[in-house]
Amino acid sequence: MATTEKLNLTMLCDFYELTMGNGYFEKGYKDRITYFDLFFRRCPDGGGFAIAAGLEQIIQYIQDLHFSAEDIEYLRARKLFSEEFLQYLADFRFTGDIWAVPEGTPIFPHEPIITVRAPAIEAQLIETFLLLTINHQSLIATKANRVVRAAQGRTVLEFGSRRAQGADAAILGSRAAYIGGCNGTACTISDQLFGVYAGGTMAHAWVQMFDSEYEAFKTYCEIYPENATLLVDTYNTLKSGVPNAIRVFNEVLKPKGITKCGIRLDSGDMAYLTQKARKMLDDAGWTECKISVSNSLDEYIIQDLLRQGAKIDMFGVGERLITARSEPVFGGVYKLAAVEREDGSIQPKIKISENVGKITNPHFKKLYRFYGNDTGKAIADYLCVYDETVDDTKDMEIFDPEATWKTKTVYNFTAKELQVPIFQKGELVYQCPDLQQIRAYCMEQVDMLWDEVKRFDNPHTYYVDLSQKLWDIKYNLLKQRNGKA
Amino acid sequence: MATTEKLNLTMLCDFYELTMGNGYFEKGYKDRITYFDLFFRRCPDGGGFAIAAGLEQIIQYIQDLHFSAEDIEYLRARKLFSEEFLQYLADFRFTGDIWAVPEGTPIFPHEPIITVRAPAIEAQLIETFLLLTINHQSLIATKANRVVRAAQGRTVLEFGSRRAQGADAAILGSRAAYIGGCNGTACTISDQLFGVYAGGTMAHAWVQMFDSEYEAFKTYCEIYPENATLLVDTYNTLKSGVPNAIRVFNEVLKPKGITKCGIRLDSGDMAYLTQKARKMLDDAGWTECKISVSNSLDEYIIQDLLRQGAKIDMFGVGERLITARSEPVFGGVYKLAAVEREDGSIQPKIKISENVGKITNPHFKKLYRFYGNDTGKAIADYLCVYDETVDDTKDMEIFDPEATWKTKTVYNFTAKELQVPIFQKGELVYQCPDLQQIRAYCMEQVDMLWDEVKRFDNPHTYYVDLSQKLWDIKYNLLKQRNGKA
Repeated sequence: MATTEKLNLTMLCDFYELTMGNGYFEKGYKDRITYFDLFFRRCPDGGGFAIAAGLEQIIQYIQDLHFSAEDIEYLRARKLFSEEFLQYLADFRFTGDIWAVPEGTPIFPHEPIITVRAPAIEAQLIETFLLLTINHQSLIATKANRVVRAAQGRTVLEFGSRRAQGADAAILGSRAAYIGGCNGTACTISDQLFGVYAGGTMAHAWVQMFDSEYEAFKTYCEIYPENATLLVDTYNTLKSGVPNAIRVFNEVLKPKGITKCGIRLDSGDMAYLTQKARKMLDDAGWTECKISVSNSLDEYIIQDLLRQGAKIDMFGVGERLITARSEPVFGGVYKLAAVEREDGSIQPKIKISENVGKITNPHFKKLYRFYGNDTGKAIADYLCVYDETVDDTKDMEIFDPEATWKTKTVYNFTAKELQVPIFQKGELVYQCPDLQQIRAYCMEQVDMLWDEVKRFDNPHTYYVDLSQKLWDIKYNLLKQRNGKA
Repeated sequence: MATTEKLNLTMLCDFYELTMGNGYFEKGYKDRITYFDLFFRRCPDGGGFAIAAGLEQIIQYIQDLHFSAEDIEYLRARKLFSEEFLQYLADFRFTGDIWAVPEGTPIFPHEPIITVRAPAIEAQLIETFLLLTINHQSLIATKANRVVRAAQGRTVLEFGSRRAQGADAAILGSRAAYIGGCNGTACTISDQLFGVYAGGTMAHAWVQMFDSEYEAFKTYCEIYPENATLLVDTYNTLKSGVPNAIRVFNEVLKPKGITKCGIRLDSGDMAYLTQKARKMLDDAGWTECKISVSNSLDEYIIQDLLRQGAKIDMFGVGERLITARSEPVFGGVYKLAAVEREDGSIQPKIKISENVGKITNPHFKKLYRFYGNDTGKAIADYLCVYDETVDDTKDMEIFDPEATWKTKTVYNFTAKELQVPIFQKGELVYQCPDLQQIRAYCMEQVDMLWDEVKRFDNPHTYYVDLSQKLWDIKYNLLKQRNGKA
């Protein structure tokens, strides 16, 4: 059971990975080296970029890959797989290479976030878990980054566990939200596991449990004088909640010389109520009292509230963040890009589609990001064949792969490879940064994007260009394939 | 780590459950008996009902509730909790009562899906996990039921693991989709764990791996002659995929006397392509060949495709089902309904809101469903105080709690209590049905709803009425509270 036993997530794969695996095995393709790219095609919410997240969980998954005796038994009972293949699975481990962009990196459509080079069966088997992990965490990190940017420096806490799509969605979702820039979470276990600071004070039930709101507040302040954030909307925010809070602050905190405290609102019109509440608090001398709000917030509501002059110090963002409600699917895909021939040469592969945007970029590739030396900003990303190298000491002409007549010369720039080696011949060669480092790296990298790319609506389309060599290979494969069909 | 170690999900709680718990402990409210209801306020997608799911995972969670030494250590380091409280947590287990509607039951807004009677700290602590589990699985079961009804008896498979919001969302999502009526899944581990039949044949990568589509198909049919569903859209569905499939069926299956086979389409216009493909297959004598489709399907697209005469035997439904993309949040809440006084009498509690729909139904309650004896259909649900009993041998007048002048007399009906006891004094007293039974029960119960309630758009609002006694208690609490504010 997912909730109480340790699961072998090796079995969290689409069943066709196994039927194909058995097929490759039967056909003698077991050791055939394949290259797969994991990439996405469109940023959620019409945004200009996404944030990569989930690599650490993929590393743990790859290291733990194995089929237990019970797994083999289950598969045998399906009566589809040869005994030789089942024996192969019993000894299975990952022996290939993996490259990935580090977590927290801003990423763009059609870029390989992860590249896998491995024997066909291995590369295929890990597809489902790689996709679901990157899809989930990148989705939430990207959404969180939007919410955090809307809050313009104010504190944003992830409050969504109760509305998450399962336990992992709550736990890893709050991890991803932290990478995207949230300051903390309400989810206790995420703090315990990852050091995502967890906070929280009271629910409406606390207030209801007492005979009066005043008594509920007073009891709380007496127990937690240093940490007194009172939920003021159980009965009536301005007539009852805020006056009772002020009374209790005066009675309990003032004698102790404590000036730090807070109130939280979870319903009603936040623009109106927070301005009124702020004035009541300030008039009573509680100028350091922080005002927190929650209740179906997202980046657009936060933007609007601030525009309307709401007096808010902290946003608790729940269901719309933890499920990425406005667009809850990050459409990452995992596509074959090349296979190795017996002589070791690499044969590029392409996936055609009548929808031009769904045609893949073939071959084993390298991904560069170009930074302007004068501005420090990211200018363009550049995909080339694995054996090409960018010389950033010279000017360079790049072109739009979907409109090849549009060219641009980049100069005075630094080219940086975005993917780093994670596994080599099955061995982990990457040291995961801690979550605080990932979050800081994400902030730094987002700062290096132009504001035009960061706009919520109709952002500028960031350049992701192909090298001439890669473009020619793609074009020739398309022509060839079109000739055949 | 969520993906590889067994987690203690006791720690998957909002942090405020712990600060409140410590507060109740300090205040001497530790043993105060409380009643909480878990309910929702609105059906997703504007539907007329939802499907309850997730109870089995809640049972396992409750049975496993405990704080490990590491958990206590983590909490101690937060410097908010008394040593006495930490000691209490170290010995913590659930000692209360839980009632719930069985999984697969159609449920309506404002009905208690789960009722918890337990000491305050216990009842509060389990809030987050109960909510996230019911919210997630009911969301997916409800969506799946819509999709399955749209398919009008055709096979529907859950195909969404790779786009799920984490591992649990994939695994338990496919469990919930099965409860809602799906016939199977692509998720191997859900079959292994729950017996949700997992199937799947090939991805585009299989086709690309070979020098030609023909060779890819032929190899597959030779290995899996009894299970040959070929993916025909890698290059060109009608010019290449279907002709190659027919050629291979003729060459490999026909000599063996096999007539069962399949093709799958994953792109393009499904109405047009499936009609053309059906004709090509029939003309070639492959009338038993099943046509499967996938690619961003949901209940509306399925309905449209069938209306346009698409020839489809099986739908593979992915991201829009596993994330409930059109409305990915099931807004279940968990609210205090009553507390017990020291003399054992029950004091009803209410949560007020300026939004009338957010006012709770107070008190410890019973939930009945009335079925017409002539039609077998569900007529209305009825909420009353725990000590009331419905006499279904007599006619009964019920009224709309939001418009009390609207009355209705029900007669010749059978009243059935919907909640069943799950835990009594901390002991499990409920035997979980297996998943096949839950699914069958769900189908049977959905059949007992009028078509008007099952319409996708603007369904009839099913009656959920209150007894006069319960209504009076609610009204008096509201008046009282309004007097105070």
